Parts: sequence; structure tokens; C-alpha cells
Amino acid sequence: MDDLQTLRQQLGDRLVTEPGRVAQHAHDSSRAEPAGTPLALVEASSTADVAAALAWAHAHAVPVSVRGAGTGLAGGANAYDGGLIVSLAGMNQILSIDQNERVAVVQPGVITAELDAAARLEGLFYPPDPASARSCTIGGNIATNAGGLRCVAHGVTRDAVAALEVVLADGRVLRTGSRTRKNVVGYDLTSLMVGSEGTLGIVTEATVRLKPVPLGTPCSFRASFDDLDSAGRAVTAIVGGAATPEVLELMDAASVEIIESFQPSGLTVPRGAMLVGQTVGVTAAAQAAAIAETCVAHGATETEVSDSDALIEARRLSNPALTARGLKISCDVGVPVARLAEIFHGITEISRTHDRLVSTVAHAGDGNLHSTVDCADDDIAAADAVLDDITRLALALGGTITGEHGVGSVKLHELPWQLDEVSRATQAAIKQALDPRGILTPGRGI
Amino acid sequence: MDDLQTLRQQLGDRLVTEPGRVAQHAHDSSRAEPAGTPLALVEASSTADVAAALAWAHAHAVPVSVRGAGTGLAGGANAYDGGLIVSLAGMNQILSIDQNERVAVVQPGVITAELDAAARLEGLFYPPDPASARSCTIGGNIATNAGGLRCVAHGVTRDAVAALEVVLADGRVLRTGSRTRKNVVGYDLTSLMVGSEGTLGIVTEATVRLKPVPLGTPCSFRASFDDLDSAGRAVTAIVGGAATPEVLELMDAASVEIIESFQPSGLTVPRGAMLVGQTVGVTAAAQAAAIAETCVAHGATETEVSDSDALIEARRLSNPALTARGLKISCDVGVPVARLAEIFHGITEISRTHDRLVSTVAHAGDGNLHSTVDCADDDIAAADAVLDDITRLALALGGTITGEHGVGSVKLHELPWQLDEVSRATQAAIKQALDPRGILTPGRGI
Repeated sequence: MDDLQTLRQQLGDRLVTEPGRVAQHAHDSSRAEPAGTPLALVEASSTADVAAALAWAHAHAVPVSVRGAGTGLAGGANAYDGGLIVSLAGMNQILSIDQNERVAVVQPGVITAELDAAARLEGLFYPPDPASARSCTIGGNIATNAGGLRCVAHGVTRDAVAALEVVLADGRVLRTGSRTRKNVVGYDLTSLMVGSEGTLGIVTEATVRLKPVPLGTPCSFRASFDDLDSAGRAVTAIVGGAATPEVLELMDAASVEIIESFQPSGLTVPRGAMLVGQTVGVTAAAQAAAIAETCVAHGATETEVSDSDALIEARRLSNPALTARGLKISCDVGVPVARLAEIFHGITEISRTHDRLVSTVAHAGDGNLHSTVDCADDDIAAADAVLDDITRLALALGGTITGEHGVGSVKLHELPWQLDEVSRATQAAIKQALDPRGILTPGRGI
Repeated sequence: MDDLQTLRQQLGDRLVTEPGRVAQHAHDSSRAEPAGTPLALVEASSTADVAAALAWAHAHAVPVSVRGAGTGLAGGANAYDGGLIVSLAGMNQILSIDQNERVAVVQPGVITAELDAAARLEGLFYPPDPASARSCTIGGNIATNAGGLRCVAHGVTRDAVAALEVVLADGRVLRTGSRTRKNVVGYDLTSLMVGSEGTLGIVTEATVRLKPVPLGTPCSFRASFDDLDSAGRAVTAIVGGAATPEVLELMDAASVEIIESFQPSGLTVPRGAMLVGQTVGVTAAAQAAAIAETCVAHGATETEVSDSDALIEARRLSNPALTARGLKISCDVGVPVARLAEIFHGITEISRTHDRLVSTVAHAGDGNLHSTVDCADDDIAAADAVLDDITRLALALGGTITGEHGVGSVKLHELPWQLDEVSRATQAAIKQALDPRGILTPGRGI
């Protein structure tokens, strides 16, 4: 496209057209989603770069995909044929951390764990911690409203975002939100942008809320169960009890085996499932002990309480371990915590019906499950049918088709199962109002 | 209007046209905002009633105002000339409280304190507690994203809303959100509706999140200061400290005097200001003692710790006390907590410059201030100028023109001070997309 020259004049060598380099940025970490062959890659270094890219794309009706670290699992950052990729990986500066106001101002390419580490130098921390925190970016977390391990105690990414700078589809720059704890001026455009999966604008700066690091030494706990149902009932009891875990994760037997094979950490593979978690604060040890007791009362065959965090570190390996095992497709459903035992029971049934190995890890404390189905490359449709059955079950239990990964392209066919026509029409009306030419991550997310 | 007959066929005697009864519903609790003379009042008893009213108003391009208990302070519920009033006061049922999932499903006319009381019978509570909790409704709280006294610990109304049923401008019924803790399907229409001040739809049912009542006996504290600056510095220190108050309120000397005159509770009027608050949980007493010590370290001349909540009850009387004193106009600004001493200092200066008595109460823990200016009926413009100066100061300190009352009509002129043209255009585009004929609370809120 000749017109790319006008964009090159603005961006110089930050506009990349060399096919090999462009192709390296064309896929996210979804295992089986298609990606197109884009025109060019914009390696943005500033808000002005992003604004120039979108103004150009808007003028030429060119589809735009947006990426940070490319760790997304829903195909949301995959490139479009003839499209533009906007990469925010180079906008990776922590601009300020204000200890008094407990906020940080960051660029979107900042790695989540690096923000957390920088905050800890000030006695604060960044609450959301997706399992991929060491490689994913804040911008991607905001685009998907990412969850993670600590959500049961601290909420999701949306709860941590105070204000945003967003480049709109036509290149105008929007500022949303406020540093104050309370602010009711106008519509909540901050929450609207969080989780919009690149379809309404590109976040170029975020003001996020930090929390003080709890006093005392964190404490980890673990409990093994002979069956998934018992583990699910234990989770419901823990969440309804007086102790408040900061992390409460479940790994079924297949997941523990896969993780241990990938990087052994001395975990014994349970017969049914393992709960691992963490408590914090001055009563951390007492809370962990109380949670272990609750587990025993619900049938745990073995429990352990420790001041090491090795147990939780193992949980963070599940996604790389699954990828290394060659497992291709997974889902991300949510149910009310009170329904966990029911969905675990149902997943076991679905696995039997389809005669397929299903391994499940869960952010159990907030009812968010990731099931992965074993399948070969030529077998994806059949495996997808297993995930669809799990998704339908989650909905039947009052749940959601995606708790934290987003819809992207991978779940688009499931969207009408959860959202009725009025809801989809309302979303489409907002999309049309903010991106009338439909250039931003078109055909995905909503 | 002859066409009102078609609506009467659907609503029967729930459509009220008797001028006296209609007029009783034409004003909210804002003290000096104009209201029009509407055509009729709809006393809605169901979602279907609301849908019928809006479909009719949409078809006839009739402006609609929405009210619950009429406790709003921004003119947002005032009637329009030739308009329709939709009252949700009769939709006042708590439909369910689920102890396991910790959610309640309620109609919009439920009184906030009554929901809280019902939840407490199940060992749970409803976190947001506007000062008017005993008279305001959940629907109004959602429309304004109401704050209150416990926000410093539990967040605002938006943080407590999981899902909504909303009647859109044309009468279609939208369902938003999910019961699950995590849900990233589509745009966050729940957060968009919360705080939209009746401009995007009418909430007819809400699923709200409840929390478990903390163990132990709550503890109250109070501290008197000779000047406002010291009290402001104490608040900043408390919020930055290890103890976490559930309530942290400030009343300046003038406010304490007005409240004590209205309903004496034995409070000694301080020279400068008084902090009152509450701690909860098993360490409540130790936390209250630590907060009192922090107050002394920042210049408190007198402190008290008690297991009675009479101190906080006095704070809840400020609005009726101000109204009884004949005070007409007040503001609702927010600043980052770290800037509290600065704004208190500035308010003292502004009061001197204008030579007017300004009394201030504040949800100090989240930096939200309400200043009231003494003025006569023929003197409102001059008093408004005082409030405008306070508002400009809040913005200069990184704050907001409204923390919890909303923009309504009273703050419309201040909106451009905080939101730039791109922001206002974005909000207008969303309004246009969802209410193309502009019938819902037109000309207010955004």
C-alpha cells in the first residue's frame, strides 16, 4: 500500500515492514487460533506514535491488532490480513510511584511482575497477578481485565485501575478516571475500557492503585484430596469461613502430574486434586492452620502448612507445562464458588462421556476454572466440543464463558450462549459509537 | 396530551395525573435546583411498567425523570416540563439473599438500610452506607454510584453491584453482569450504568454483593483538633498507617455546632475539627487505640475510644441538621487523601476571602468533602461562587468536582473544568448510542 509512506514519514523506523519481523508479532499465545498476514508492525514508543498509527488506520479503514507481550490466550492479539499490528512492548516505563497516594503511573508495556517488584521497594504491591505475571504486560492485563491468583483477596485488574490514557479509533487521546478514591463525574469510561479487548481504544498510560504489603510473614498451605468433589466442597467452606486466603488454587491430579514432569518441585500427585494457597498478615499462620483444618474436615488426606511459597510457584507453571506437553486448547469458565463441587463433578462426567483426558487448574477461591483437553492437531474440533460442554455446564450453574482470558476469537461462538440479543445490540451500539469504521480488533471480543 | 390514554391503558391507576400528587414527586432534595411541571407520574410496580413508560416516552419524545426516595442532592431527579416522572419507590422488594454466594437480588426501591438489616440476619451486610441510608434507595445509590461512610474500607456502590436489569430508553430490557466474581464477557455495562444518573437506562433489579459481618465488637473513636490542617494531616497519617478504619469522618467546628443544635448528643464543639470513626474485627479496640495515638501525635487535644456508635450516629445527622438550619447549597468535592490538609487550609482561606461561614463535613478517609455555605434565598449566586472556588481548588489538587452526589443539574457548569472535549464527546457518543432520542434525564449528568 503506497499510503504506508505517509505513516512512515511520521514513525520512521518504528514502522516495520520486513516480513520476518512482522510475522514474529502476528500471534498471541492461543494455541489454535488463526492469524493473518499484516501489512506492517508499529513499534510504538509514545502516545503520539499510537495516535499517528490509528489516525492513519482510521483514514484507510485498515484493521488494527494490538499486542503487549503476546501472552493472550484468546486470539485477541492475532494479526489481520492487510492489517497493522501496534506493539506497545517498547512503552515499558514505570513513570512514577506515589507512596502517599498509593498509585503508580505506568506505560502499557510494563511487565506486571516488574511493577509489583518496583512497588514493593516502597512497601506497596500491585494486587492483580495473572499466572503469567513475569511475562505479560499491564496493557494486556487491562485489555482483558486479567485476573490471577490473588483476585480472591484483592479483586481483578479493573479494581486496580484508577485512570487511563486511551487513544481512540480516530487517533484522538481520551483521559478517563481520577486519582481520588471517589469520582462520579460522567460515565465510568475507565471500567468500559478495561476488558474491552482492544476493540474501543489503545491504552497508552495507566494510573493503577497499589496496596500496602501486609505485615507479618506469608504462609502457604496445601491439601490433597482423593476426589474433585471433596476439594470443591472444601473451597466453598474456606471461602465462606472466617479465614481469608490471599490465594486459593486447585490443581487436579492430571495437572499436578504435568507440572511435576515439566519442573519437579517435590509435589506428590494426589488421587483427586490438590488445593494450594497463601495467607498473609499478622495472623497468617493461624489462618493457614484453620484452612488446613477445614480441608481435613472435608476429606483431605494430607495437609501441609509452610512459610515457603514453593507450593504456589508450582501452580504458576501450569501454562508453560501444558504448552510443553503439547496440549493445545483450554477454556476459562467461571461459576459461583458455591457451585464448584458441581462443576468438578460435571467435568469428570464430560471427560468420561467424550473419553478424553481433561486436566483442570482453578483459581478456586473465585470460582474460575481452566480445563485443558488433550488432542492432536487434526483433532481440535472434537476437543473443542469437550470445552463447549464444560462451558455450557458453567452457564447452567449461573457462571460465565470467560472469567479472565477474554472472548477474543476463540470464544466468539459461545458469546450468544451468555449474552442475549439486547445485550449484544447494546455492546455493538457502543462499539459503533466509539469506532465507527470498525478498525480496532474487528470481529473479536464482542 | 391525548396520547397519555395509550399509556393509561397499560398502567391503569399506576399512571397518576392529579397535579397535587404529581407535584409531590417533582423535586429531589437539592436545595436550589429548578424543577418543571410534568405531565404525569408513573408509580411503577414492575419491570413491565417501566418498559411501557419508556416505550411510550420514546415514541413521543417525552423527557423522563426517575426517582426513588428523592434524596438526591444534585437535581438529578427533578421533573421536566411536559415530562414523565417514573417513581420506583413501590418496587421495594428484597427478592432473595443467598448466604452461600453472598449476593442479594433487590428491586430498586429498597431502602439501603433495610437491605443492610436483612443481610445482617444472615450474618452478612451491605457495604455501601450513604449518610442517608435510612431513607435513600438502592436504585438511587446505583444511579449516582453513591458513596458513604464505610467506603474507606469497602469501596463505593459500583464495587458492590454484580449484575443489573435495566430498561433501556426504548423500553427493551437489558441484563448486565454476572454472579461470578470474575466475568470478562463483553463490555462492563454494569459499571457503565452505575453512576449514569438516569441518563442511559432505568435499573429495575440489582444483584449486589454482600460481605460477612466482621467478628468481634466494633469500636468507635473521636479526636478533637484546634485547627483543620492538623486534622487533615492526621487523616493522611491514619490512612497511610497499619490500622484500617472502617469509617473515618471529619466534622469542622461549625458542623459539630449545627449537628449538636439539631439533636444534642453530648459532643463538645472543637476549636478546629473533630475526627470520628469506627474500627471492626477482632483487633477493633487495638486499632482504635492506635488511631487515637496517631491523632495525638498530629496535635489532637482530646481523644476518646468507645464501644458505642453514638459518635458516628451524630455524623449521619449532618444533612438534616443543615437543612433544618436553612442552609441551601453545598458541594461534594474529592481530593487525594494526601492533599486533605491543603484543601482544608484552602477552604479556610476561601471562607475568609468571601467573608462567608463555610461548614465542612468530610468522608475524610477517602478524601471526599461536603462544604455548605450560609446564604439567603436571594443570595444563592454569591454563595455558589464560594463553592465554585472550593471546587476549582479540589481540581488543582488532583481531585474531582463530585465524589458521590453526582453532576445532575447542579454541577453541569463545572463539568468542563474536569473533563476535556474528547471526554465529553465520548460520553455524548455513548449517550447518543443508547438513548438516540434523548429522553432519559436529558441535559443533566454529562
